[in-house]
Parts: sequence; C-alpha cells; structure tokens
Amino acid sequence: MSHLEEKTIKTEKIFSGKVISLQLEDVELPNGKTSKREVIKHPGAVAVFAITEDNKIVMVEQYRKALEKTIVEIPAGKLEKGEDPMECARRELEEETGYGCDEMDWLISFYTSPGFADEIVHLYIAKGLKIVEDAASPDEDEFVNLMEVSIEEALILLKEQKIYDAKTAYAVQYLQLQEALKK
Amino acid sequence: MSHLEEKTIKTEKIFSGKVISLQLEDVELPNGKTSKREVIKHPGAVAVFAITEDNKIVMVEQYRKALEKTIVEIPAGKLEKGEDPMECARRELEEETGYGCDEMDWLISFYTSPGFADEIVHLYIAKGLKIVEDAASPDEDEFVNLMEVSIEEALILLKEQKIYDAKTAYAVQYLQLQEALKK
Repeated sequence: MSHLEEKTIKTEKIFSGKVISLQLEDVELPNGKTSKREVIKHPGAVAVFAITEDNKIVMVEQYRKALEKTIVEIPAGKLEKGEDPMECARRELEEETGYGCDEMDWLISFYTSPGFADEIVHLYIAKGLKIVEDAASPDEDEFVNLMEVSIEEALILLKEQKIYDAKTAYAVQYLQLQEALKK
Repeated sequence: MSHLEEKTIKTEKIFSGKVISLQLEDVELPNGKTSKREVIKHPGAVAVFAITEDNKIVMVEQYRKALEKTIVEIPAGKLEKGEDPMECARRELEEETGYGCDEMDWLISFYTSPGFADEIVHLYIAKGLKIVEDAASPDEDEFVNLMEVSIEEALILLKEQKIYDAKTAYAVQYLQLQEALKK
C-alpha cells in the first residue's frame, strides 16, 4: 500500500489546547508533487453502550458547543494520558450516569474524521448495570441529563435528529442488528 | 433543553485553512461559571454507500495523513460552498470511482466528533451503478485505489482494521442489518 503514502516534508505546530492540537503539514504526494494537510491531534476517546435489564440504552443529553445545540448520545469521554480505554469506559459510565457494571466488553474502535483528525473512539458494551453509591461526578464543566430509551424510542430520537452523532447511530443500529439476528 | 446551554462570551479565531478552521470560545456554563471550548468548524461532507449488482460495496483505499496510514473507506468528500449534498455525493462517487448511478437516496446524517467539531457527514446509498465515460478525476492531491468488496470481505477488513472509520463501519453494519432483515 506504500505507493499511496504521503511523506512529511515539514510540520508547523499552530495550536495546542486542553483537548486538541492543530498542525500544518507540507507533504510529498505519491506523484512527487507537494500539498498541505491540516491535521488535528486528539488523545482518543471511549463511548459506552450500556444496556439495562429491560433492554433500554443508557443515554445522556448534553449541550455541544461545537454544534450550538443539545443532542442525545451514549456516554463518552476523552482518554486521560496513559489511561487504559476499558478503565476510561468504566470511569465515564460512572461519572456521567452513576452506573457501574458487571460486564464490560470491547465492541469496535473507529476513527471519527480521518480526513483531518486522528480521533479514535473505542466503543464498549456494558451489561449488568448497578447504581454506584457515592458515584464519581462528571467534570466540573460538564452538565448532562440521564435518559434510558428503548430501541423504539431511540429510532424516534434518530428520526427527530436528537440522536445525531456517529457513535450513537452506530450503537442503535448494532442493537437493531442483534434483535434482527435473534428472530 | 435550554438549561444545558452554554452561552458564548467571547470567540477568538485561531486559524482558518482550506478544510477546517479553529476558534476558542469562552462560555458561560449552566451554573454561571465559565469555561473554554476548542471548536473546529468544517464545511460538512458526504459519503456514498454504493452497491454493485452482485451486492458488493464500492470502496476506496486512501492514505490519511492525520492517521499516518492507509485505510479502506466508502467514497467521501467535503461539500463545496453552497453545494447540494446529493449533488456532492454524485460528484464524489464519479470522481473517486468512475461510477454514475440510477438511484441515489439519503440514508442518514451524523456529526462525527460533536465534542470538538461541527463536521456532519450525509450518507447516501447508490444503486444501479454504471461506468461514466470520461469520468471526472479526483482532486489533484487525492490518490485512491478502487475496490469492490463483498459483505464477508468487508467484515474481514473490519477485523484487520483496514476498514477503520465511523461512516464505513456504519455502512457495513447497515448492509448486515438489511441481510438479517431479509431472512
């Protein structure tokens, strides 16, 4: 596959923040010409597809400044430096929903925006949920509303574009697929 | 839902490029305290889930500088200013694969990284594919290998992490769901 590769000629760091950093890269293309790439570096994230005993999906309603609106998502959060993704998944689930779980399994990992960012989301599925006494709280600048929705309710939220992001759409479709395979 | 909203106090533009721009926002949180948000603005994108007569998915292998690797994705591209998403989907399909289509239907739209970016992907499904004589070419800095993969091959590519991005994982799962519903 190396014939598609772009070699870095120069990297210029533009910005380094608490979540993302931005760099501009001069690259040599496969045909020997040059171009510029705008690249966002991100620490990576986890998302947790947590299912209750009565087959409801645990979701959080959250304001997203980048979108200037409130959407409904499965619980998710950034990896801290050196943090194991599954530990991060347990932490985010507890912080955002107050739930712990008996089972936590990796489902899939995917890049969200390969055209400009290296953000990867590791998606876990959590079962055997139980309320944690004195659960950890969300970050101090994070405000969420907890919701538990059936697959039918999730499909309505998708249609109404209240559920509106890739990881949550993937999770809902995953549950639809599991239901279809059972029949 | 307005009690979750974050009000903008100040916006500082950091960078404006050919694909993305970056701004820093000082916000007032629901509890009256303040915080900072790093926000990437993106023009939006389309992706095309094109299916051949023998039920194969048209994919492109492409080097992604942000990831420093080559992955396999469904055809996709950025919206040009004022461009209709369905027109963009037809253009990107032709440029990247040489295919036109009889049918092009909207499937779903989702935000890819709501935590820091407003990128939205509009996903279309294309059927009745036919090779376009003198098809438009990809952008001059874009190099892709065309592939046509069965659902079984796509699942192997997912496992091998050659397919590794949200929109393509969603599309493969969509086809799995359709197959399961047929049975």
